[in-house]
Amino acid sequence: MDSIEHIAHGAPPLARDPMDAPDGARRRLLGALGAAGLGAGLIRPAKARHEAPQSLVTPPPQTPSRDAPPAAGAGAARGYTPVRTPNGWTLPARLRDGAREFHLVAEEVEHEFAPGCRARCWGYNGGTPGPTLEAVEGERVRIYVTNRLPEPTSVHWHGILLPSGMDGVGGLSQPPIAPGETFVYEFTLRQHGTHLYHPHADENTQMALGLMGLFIIHPQDGEAERIDRDYAILLHNWALHPGTWRPDPSVMTDFDLWTFNSKVFPATEPLLAASGERVRIRIGNLSMWNHPIHLHGHRFQVTGSDGGRWPRALWRPEVTEIVGVGQTRDLEFVAAPGDWALHCHMSHHTMNAMGHGIASPLGVDQRGVAEDLRRLLPGYMAMGAGGMSGHGAHAAMMPGPDNTLPMTGGEGPHGPLEMGGMFTVLKVRDGLARSDARDPGWYRPARGEMARKVSSDAGFGEPLRRGTDAGPA
Amino acid sequence: MDSIEHIAHGAPPLARDPMDAPDGARRRLLGALGAAGLGAGLIRPAKARHEAPQSLVTPPPQTPSRDAPPAAGAGAARGYTPVRTPNGWTLPARLRDGAREFHLVAEEVEHEFAPGCRARCWGYNGGTPGPTLEAVEGERVRIYVTNRLPEPTSVHWHGILLPSGMDGVGGLSQPPIAPGETFVYEFTLRQHGTHLYHPHADENTQMALGLMGLFIIHPQDGEAERIDRDYAILLHNWALHPGTWRPDPSVMTDFDLWTFNSKVFPATEPLLAASGERVRIRIGNLSMWNHPIHLHGHRFQVTGSDGGRWPRALWRPEVTEIVGVGQTRDLEFVAAPGDWALHCHMSHHTMNAMGHGIASPLGVDQRGVAEDLRRLLPGYMAMGAGGMSGHGAHAAMMPGPDNTLPMTGGEGPHGPLEMGGMFTVLKVRDGLARSDARDPGWYRPARGEMARKVSSDAGFGEPLRRGTDAGPA
Amino acid sequence: MDSIEHIAHGAPPLARDPMDAPDGARRRLLGALGAAGLGAGLIRPAKARHEAPQSLVTPPPQTPSRDAPPAAGAGAARGYTPVRTPNGWTLPARLRDGAREFHLVAEEVEHEFAPGCRARCWGYNGGTPGPTLEAVEGERVRIYVTNRLPEPTSVHWHGILLPSGMDGVGGLSQPPIAPGETFVYEFTLRQHGTHLYHPHADENTQMALGLMGLFIIHPQDGEAERIDRDYAILLHNWALHPGTWRPDPSVMTDFDLWTFNSKVFPATEPLLAASGERVRIRIGNLSMWNHPIHLHGHRFQVTGSDGGRWPRALWRPEVTEIVGVGQTRDLEFVAAPGDWALHCHMSHHTMNAMGHGIASPLGVDQRGVAEDLRRLLPGYMAMGAGGMSGHGAHAAMMPGPDNTLPMTGGEGPHGPLEMGGMFTVLKVRDGLARSDARDPGWYRPARGEMARKVSSDAGFGEPLRRGTDAGPA
Repeated sequence: MDSIEHIAHGAPPLARDPMDAPDGARRRLLGALGAAGLGAGLIRPAKARHEAPQSLVTPPPQTPSRDAPPAAGAGAARGYTPVRTPNGWTLPARLRDGAREFHLVAEEVEHEFAPGCRARCWGYNGGTPGPTLEAVEGERVRIYVTNRLPEPTSVHWHGILLPSGMDGVGGLSQPPIAPGETFVYEFTLRQHGTHLYHPHADENTQMALGLMGLFIIHPQDGEAERIDRDYAILLHNWALHPGTWRPDPSVMTDFDLWTFNSKVFPATEPLLAASGERVRIRIGNLSMWNHPIHLHGHRFQVTGSDGGRWPRALWRPEVTEIVGVGQTRDLEFVAAPGDWALHCHMSHHTMNAMGHGIASPLGVDQRGVAEDLRRLLPGYMAMGAGGMSGHGAHAAMMPGPDNTLPMTGGEGPHGPLEMGGMFTVLKVRDGLARSDARDPGWYRPARGEMARKVSSDAGFGEPLRRGTDAGPA
Repeated sequence: MDSIEHIAHGAPPLARDPMDAPDGARRRLLGALGAAGLGAGLIRPAKARHEAPQSLVTPPPQTPSRDAPPAAGAGAARGYTPVRTPNGWTLPARLRDGAREFHLVAEEVEHEFAPGCRARCWGYNGGTPGPTLEAVEGERVRIYVTNRLPEPTSVHWHGILLPSGMDGVGGLSQPPIAPGETFVYEFTLRQHGTHLYHPHADENTQMALGLMGLFIIHPQDGEAERIDRDYAILLHNWALHPGTWRPDPSVMTDFDLWTFNSKVFPATEPLLAASGERVRIRIGNLSMWNHPIHLHGHRFQVTGSDGGRWPRALWRPEVTEIVGVGQTRDLEFVAAPGDWALHCHMSHHTMNAMGHGIASPLGVDQRGVAEDLRRLLPGYMAMGAGGMSGHGAHAAMMPGPDNTLPMTGGEGPHGPLEMGGMFTVLKVRDGLARSDARDPGWYRPARGEMARKVSSDAGFGEPLRRGTDAGPA
Repeated sequence: MDSIEHIAHGAPPLARDPMDAPDGARRRLLGALGAAGLGAGLIRPAKARHEAPQSLVTPPPQTPSRDAPPAAGAGAARGYTPVRTPNGWTLPARLRDGAREFHLVAEEVEHEFAPGCRARCWGYNGGTPGPTLEAVEGERVRIYVTNRLPEPTSVHWHGILLPSGMDGVGGLSQPPIAPGETFVYEFTLRQHGTHLYHPHADENTQMALGLMGLFIIHPQDGEAERIDRDYAILLHNWALHPGTWRPDPSVMTDFDLWTFNSKVFPATEPLLAASGERVRIRIGNLSMWNHPIHLHGHRFQVTGSDGGRWPRALWRPEVTEIVGVGQTRDLEFVAAPGDWALHCHMSHHTMNAMGHGIASPLGVDQRGVAEDLRRLLPGYMAMGAGGMSGHGAHAAMMPGPDNTLPMTGGEGPHGPLEMGGMFTVLKVRDGLARSDARDPGWYRPARGEMARKVSSDAGFGEPLRRGTDAGPA
């Protein structure tokens, strides 16, 4: 990579300051300082005008596998359980010059929300959300940001205490990063918790197209309470109008797709845990709605936010927690065996695109008219005369526009799940090894522990109704 | 009821297993187990293939009256204050086979939001919301659910800790309940608090049409703090477009009606209390908005949620609490004498349907044009040239489409209330008996304790204005 | 002012009850009672039928300057730090007859959201929001409200514990205040905290047009913790459609302008503090959205709400707090040096009006077509083909309709800020005197404490991408 040679303070490519100390010498010095615990606060030599992110051109040796959880040893060596980002990944880093170094590249990406629905989005390092950044309280981080977008950008490190000039607000704390440029941010982590990163330059457009990521800082002294599994999910919404291929940043309220880590159900990966394990789900929100996130089968504690871990006296038992826009929430619980839904409780947010605002056909026989209507209303998708149930399965009969998912989908062990959007399944099984990332299949309830049919006669019993002879008057 | 004979595991009607123990014998056995405190965990005989909800075909003897609060003895005998659901009711249950049995029937209902506005909705046992279920922590509940809808359904017991197969997610935890079928759910209550029930199959459509209810679990050991009055309100929204008769499930944000227990003001029943009583208002939300609920005249404590009752150290003093979608909140306070508004603070949510998105006529004389405009814009409702005040009263002059309420209504002791939607009045009076459910009329403030007119001259005094000679410069 | 002569209980102008005690005599009596600490509970003489707010026709001597913070002595004498309302002001009051007297006048106002965007709104005392009211716990307040609007109004004192008849709900607690009338409210403050005032009569229209204000009650015994700077901000939204001059009260969700104290950035005043000072920002919300308010560079404590100051054990560390509609939140923190963004985190709420719902032109060259399109779509504003960045600066090239701001604006020390709406800057500097209200200019970070360019080569390094040779597989 000859680009390594081109790094300079606004100097033309290839200009290199001959006074600069050789990389190796500087690194040895800083390494020594770092080993003595002084690396965090050290003053960088004024002459150090170029920096080669050599560590980033080859994958670091400890790179975790994409599909397996990080090796137990990786975080354990540092005293933390690495976060797992369903449908996502953690960006490998390298310790250099007393800092943990990352390299983010903002660029256009082709993103698949679920099989059958793709769009041209903006992301970091090839995807949306960008890779999760993980570091440890007390560390110094150095983050290179390259802009391969067609307009200026910047990165704000949301919730992180840092010098004003590292805060990433374009125009206010720094010049915007022009297309083609690389900026470097560097600061020491003085806290731990669940944080975010996102642009703060033409922020509305750039986030609407998918630029965003999670920034997890683990505590220096280990968790006060052991965490067996640690998941991280970022909420978002997308105006990908039926039949189009580019999210529309002008939409403010009526979005088409609602995502967990930029995926809609059934493409959302399940979360796994062993019965009795302590699980943390960290949820961040960079959408346009304050989403009430509901977990079935458990009472969780809300233990922290982008403001850091809360004192234990503030932990609040909930089954549904609003994660506001620009907020994060940490949810912790002891896993109970079963297959448990985890979803936003706004019912339209567990569906995929529908023709909102179109007259309801409940009670109307529409066979054969969907195509006629679509000639007049390009976004039209037929709804069922007797409700929407089965709409997912019958998509072939009443197909939507190109590149558009059925409103609901997913097949469970007992039939269609009829869900979409912000929905996934927490699968808890006895004795599930943490190193085993394979989907354990569907839960099989013990005998007598499942709702069951007792009659096929619609006239079963005679229910009490208010104000009738049978009911209370 | 011959339907009792038809209950079997998918067997054709009338098929009955001759090996089955007679009901009476089984009931005696289970009763004995239950008395020994073992009923909750007992394993049901594998042969028991049919169950007759005999208790449900005749009203149980202790059926509370619809319009009176439940007899003090009913809950008192079990150590709890029964909940009162304004505009709603509690479903009578019967203890049988060691369990508290309920029977819910999902069906189409004709619902009145307020006189002058009706719609064909979906509900349970003849109405929306469905009847409130009440039980006690530690009890086993057995709930029959009959589906008389035109599509499959299921019931999710929101916030309740139970076996995965009883969780009610269609396709995931059970097969959907097909039209005409009856399923039974059975589980032991291991908690107390304010919970919900609703479909988890074609959930968006089924909730949009009104299928939902409250599930209250009282503490086994009584309340830590005496509760004198206990109210329960379920929030919802409806896309009942002006002039139509069926809620439209395709609407995601701009709803027409916002309801407390499926009623809009002025059809919402007032809440009553005696001065000095400790009152709890439990609020659940199955709408599409996170509603900030505001109570006048009191500072309440938020004491719990669908995650259960909170430790006292978490109780938070508020006058407005956001109840998120899929959340419940318990609000407790000591009642102060007066007539106090209780409402969502989003100002459009205390109004009924209006022609949102139509150009504002503020300052325009529209006399006589409403009908002309309505020929072009079928949903058009005229707004006032000098504001909307009086629009309710003048509805006859500028009538809306059929089956459409005035935007605001209600007549108070001092003139029109100009409210609609999510609004009701808490009426607190000295010495109001708990057994007296009659509306006590309007509050009469003591002399000097009411805002009063001091001038009819618009030039009264000369107010300070910023930046004028009279105001601060 | 002859209007003083016209004050009577609905009596015709100039009718005066000859039995009435002379003002001076009554004032001396009440003054004596007040001095003895009995003024709060005293019963007003039944004959006192008129009242002359003489104190209000001339500015009180201690009137604070508009642009300087209140003199340190004003609140200090009473043991509190006066609130500063950015872009707003505190209404001077006068102690009379044992009460702190205010006079609010509801009236039409010409309001400027930012240079280039004005509208005919409704406000109090010449502006929106109305002036902030400040008083001390334990005081009795007497508030005259004159209605110069074209329709009835009333004022609700949101969050304040008072007699039912003083609660300000038109029709319920009092007759509406007809156009031209003046009402008086009087009650004793039994609490402290951040509260609101707003109409409760045709509330939707009147708030949509700007009638609202903050009501701050300081603690009787001083703050438990010293507060060096105390700011108050009221959130609102406005449907001021591009090219129009009157907010449209029929809009329920898709608003055009999102404001801090009725101003959009860059017209929002910055907040100032000295490094190390303890700052409180009180935020109230009378809009239609629950806004997540985010502060950069600090972890604040949420210390109270419209339900009053919270016990310290409830203080919650956050960087983003949802302030619900009809809620207030107190945020406290120790100021760190820098220029820090304070904004709603919903990205559309830090923008000004845009043509929501118009097809996205990302990737489309639109030069010269904006005017053509606007002939067809009067509200059309062109978006950039490569994103929206620079749209503010290029407004001259692609101008919007009359009276419409660019979507984003503001020039920072490092280029365009690309923000609008609910956005302002907290400027913290070492040694900034509290008496100095001048804008200190932009922050200059220390050497090495600002993100900096390290390359202009778009091929800088080679980022890790998931699933590639270089990235984790």
